[in-house]
Amino acid sequence: MLKKFTFQTTKKYEIVDVTSIVQEIVKESEIKEGICVVYVPHATAAVIINENYDPNISDDLLDSLKENIPEGKWRHDRVDGNAAAHIKSSIVGPSETLIIKDGKLLLGTWQNLMVADFDGPKNRNVIVKIISD
Amino acid sequence: MLKKFTFQTTKKYEIVDVTSIVQEIVKESEIKEGICVVYVPHATAAVIINENYDPNISDDLLDSLKENIPEGKWRHDRVDGNAAAHIKSSIVGPSETLIIKDGKLLLGTWQNLMVADFDGPKNRNVIVKIISD
Amino acid sequence: MLKKFTFQTTKKYEIVDVTSIVQEIVKESEIKEGICVVYVPHATAAVIINENYDPNISDDLLDSLKENIPEGKWRHDRVDGNAAAHIKSSIVGPSETLIIKDGKLLLGTWQNLMVADFDGPKNRNVIVKIISD
Repeated sequence: MLKKFTFQTTKKYEIVDVTSIVQEIVKESEIKEGICVVYVPHATAAVIINENYDPNISDDLLDSLKENIPEGKWRHDRVDGNAAAHIKSSIVGPSETLIIKDGKLLLGTWQNLMVADFDGPKNRNVIVKIISD
Repeated sequence: MLKKFTFQTTKKYEIVDVTSIVQEIVKESEIKEGICVVYVPHATAAVIINENYDPNISDDLLDSLKENIPEGKWRHDRVDGNAAAHIKSSIVGPSETLIIKDGKLLLGTWQNLMVADFDGPKNRNVIVKIISD
Repeated sequence: MLKKFTFQTTKKYEIVDVTSIVQEIVKESEIKEGICVVYVPHATAAVIINENYDPNISDDLLDSLKENIPEGKWRHDRVDGNAAAHIKSSIVGPSETLIIKDGKLLLGTWQNLMVADFDGPKNRNVIVKIISD
């Protein structure tokens, strides 16, 4: 089962919680046991699983990535100005694989599913692929 | 096939080798060909695949992460004091997907499967999900 | 369906584009819908998805990793001299999971599939595992 959804980011750096959208897709699939690959088809975005009860964590993550991967000093910046976003996306990665149990994403108490945009504002697509047991 | 196991870490930073536990789960599943998702439902831990023949590598990894993501200077530290652990977990990631061949995890000669705790000591759960061909 | 292919890197740091090889393996499998795990059984290499239209991005990524994870100062360097490569491999990760749609890898316009060698020149193996819906 394959589904796509799209959203619009509004800032250069933004982490968007997509947990409830993906949970709804899993529910609609009626697949009870399996895995769920959440994939962004972009080279300047990434998929993250972490806490979002305190949204400061997302800002801390963005700041830490910015500290370690500063902007404006890379070869690709002469072409497109967004090299740091490509480096962050390469390291954090464009997908996460989740487990489906009893028709729901098996997430820890403090885990949310999020998409990070390192080069917004942009339209971002998320592909959700479900494989049943 | 879904299995869970739990272990206790004893230090703040600890990398635990779980290769033989997961190999045993794969063997008991009697699934010969497929994939195996190893997932920690935690926001301050991660799953790693690397060499453990020289256990210094795990300490080097922990030191390198500590160098790049220092403690005590983040927004979330005012709430919970463990922001660096959340950032490390977000970047390293809560899961790895392995391949099962001839009823065993297909690992390279120098690859072991490990769980990193960045905010121990804690009880940590590991979920193992096997999908057959 | 499981396939392996091998290539030789020629430099210490090298990022090799394997998109067309893996696309060909997907095509030959005749599997139309599913997922594809691309896995390197090595502890000093990694799998990356990012832009390769401008190959400078790969050099920028290698430089950024080198800046954050300098060589020659780790415990494991007393054993084998390649600790930085192990740390990079642990963080970037040995695999990516892709989606197969209509018999092809579903990649974004700016996404290529690449293998990074952090400790070449070496013979490197890539395992491709396809699971159909």
